[in-house]
Amino acid sequence: MGGSLDIRELGELGLIRAIRRRAGAVGGVWRQGIGDDAAILRPRAGRELVVTTDALVEDVHFRFRTTDARSLGHKSLAVNLSDLGATGARPLGCVATLALPRTTPPERLGGFLDGFLAEARSSGCPLVGGDTVEGPVWAVTVTAFGEVRRGRALLRGGGRPADRLVVSGELGGAALGLALLEREVRPPAGAEPFIRRQRHPRPPYRLGAELAERKLATAAIDLSDGLARDLGHLLRESRLGADVHLDRLPLPRRFVPVCAHLGLDPLALALGAGEDYELLFTLAPGAPPVEQLGRRLGVRLTEIGRLRRGRGARYLRDGLPVPLPETGFSHFAAPRRIKAPKPAAER
Amino acid sequence: MGGSLDIRELGELGLIRAIRRRAGAVGGVWRQGIGDDAAILRPRAGRELVVTTDALVEDVHFRFRTTDARSLGHKSLAVNLSDLGATGARPLGCVATLALPRTTPPERLGGFLDGFLAEARSSGCPLVGGDTVEGPVWAVTVTAFGEVRRGRALLRGGGRPADRLVVSGELGGAALGLALLEREVRPPAGAEPFIRRQRHPRPPYRLGAELAERKLATAAIDLSDGLARDLGHLLRESRLGADVHLDRLPLPRRFVPVCAHLGLDPLALALGAGEDYELLFTLAPGAPPVEQLGRRLGVRLTEIGRLRRGRGARYLRDGLPVPLPETGFSHFAAPRRIKAPKPAAER
Repeated sequence: MGGSLDIRELGELGLIRAIRRRAGAVGGVWRQGIGDDAAILRPRAGRELVVTTDALVEDVHFRFRTTDARSLGHKSLAVNLSDLGATGARPLGCVATLALPRTTPPERLGGFLDGFLAEARSSGCPLVGGDTVEGPVWAVTVTAFGEVRRGRALLRGGGRPADRLVVSGELGGAALGLALLEREVRPPAGAEPFIRRQRHPRPPYRLGAELAERKLATAAIDLSDGLARDLGHLLRESRLGADVHLDRLPLPRRFVPVCAHLGLDPLALALGAGEDYELLFTLAPGAPPVEQLGRRLGVRLTEIGRLRRGRGARYLRDGLPVPLPETGFSHFAAPRRIKAPKPAAER
Repeated sequence: MGGSLDIRELGELGLIRAIRRRAGAVGGVWRQGIGDDAAILRPRAGRELVVTTDALVEDVHFRFRTTDARSLGHKSLAVNLSDLGATGARPLGCVATLALPRTTPPERLGGFLDGFLAEARSSGCPLVGGDTVEGPVWAVTVTAFGEVRRGRALLRGGGRPADRLVVSGELGGAALGLALLEREVRPPAGAEPFIRRQRHPRPPYRLGAELAERKLATAAIDLSDGLARDLGHLLRESRLGADVHLDRLPLPRRFVPVCAHLGLDPLALALGAGEDYELLFTLAPGAPPVEQLGRRLGVRLTEIGRLRRGRGARYLRDGLPVPLPETGFSHFAAPRRIKAPKPAAER
């Protein structure tokens, strides 16, 4: 693909031209992409448009010491695809605003664009516009657009009592990866998948669209701030409670020993730490058994509990309630996101 | 309206709730506003959707020493309304990403939101989603959506030979305001309108929609980086040249004496400095005379020249060509935006 991009040589206009060239021409629903005051989309009949936006800021969400520019490019789009998927939408395109220091190394900017555009291509979410400005640190804001059949969007508030509560994939891996990166110690054997997971999330955004299209799910949210917190959002908007079986949480292979190696509590990571970008959803009564559905859709799905009347989540182990501390990531109130989880002993 | 907002007290979730409450419920084309993974829009039949995004970064685009938070809130939406108008679109709504230090004074955040939401209300462009994150400085990214009748969008590349070249409003005022703010000297008599213009731009975004709706304009661009530079974009995309009469440029009242007071060249400001957020457009041959059109639309319009075959702009004074230096704002290559224009003597 691209290679490096020297902003001081290109200037703002040259940079926009270079991005436009690399992004390529747009088609499909787009009448106009990069290169005018705005992008223009011709919506398809019978579809609703879904819009989501997310920002990643250097030294808050990531550090170049522990991530590479290409992964950052991938991730800054992927976190938005995750939100689109959670609404049941298929990606249509995106705009990106990039603030960066004028001292940015050319290979860093080139790598970022390569990662971003590769993910844009593979997900069918072309870059159609944006803004490039100077800033004291890197800050990437992406706004992504998707479409969903009229009235089929998945919302947080659609859950009903007795709906099954399902998560895709595995929990806690990204947070463990972050802990490994931030410790700066030689990672133990088997640590590589967790680091990859942190740097290079692969949200199952097509799953949400399938669930919406086939009317299988009643509510959904993507897991960006940790299961406990994101489930809280879903329950609050659905005005319901839930029983969650801790012994059913899908943990990655070698998760428990690597946590032990770092002195971390696996359950705290799986429940309380963010950036898994998996899908949490509630399954309508008429939908097939979860394992069968997962096989059909080609995604690992796990039933972790059920919605019930009442408020808030009740966590059970061996069928008995266990108390949990407040967990999950919050800007401003909590420690900065990139502060990795503390060893259990320090808490 | 609102008053102050303490982020350290509210936390991220409390802040989002407070914004959601102040922004109010959405309706019209919006099925879902703030409060889910994404906003959902039901497009109207026969309309195309227009998307634009712009970022403002502290100490690059503005300083709190020279602007107030309420004006910043207004401006961060207004610059996007300007881009929508330049495409001929009517505003539908927006999402905003706000990066800010955790030490942000509560009245600053409250003021910003008041200014933003007041402009959102008066322009019919409700806030439907966003992201709030921590950052080393303020960085505001707004993505705005508009609609335009199918096939009627104004693009930069639609100009034809002999089309009249028209600007709305007046040129150079915002740049003069910036110079006054950055000099930190007691502003001379009559300086207040320029400072207001810089802090609180009022782009004529309804004008673009009128021109598109009635098929009066063939091409348009908003003046964010200076007439010379933005005209260059329009000409390049239209593959044409233009003759521009310098003696016809619409300068604000008292512009020349206040420029003289600061030792600034009025023409350099009117042509080369940005942030006027006026509309530059080309008028179809069948359209009425410019002054008559302006009266009908309730906007000051000035015919400053014509398109012609060839490449690039030719600037004329008393009908004779005059050479102009390269002007206009560019990130990275040029000095930082908030570095105000230098006195003529220093150039």
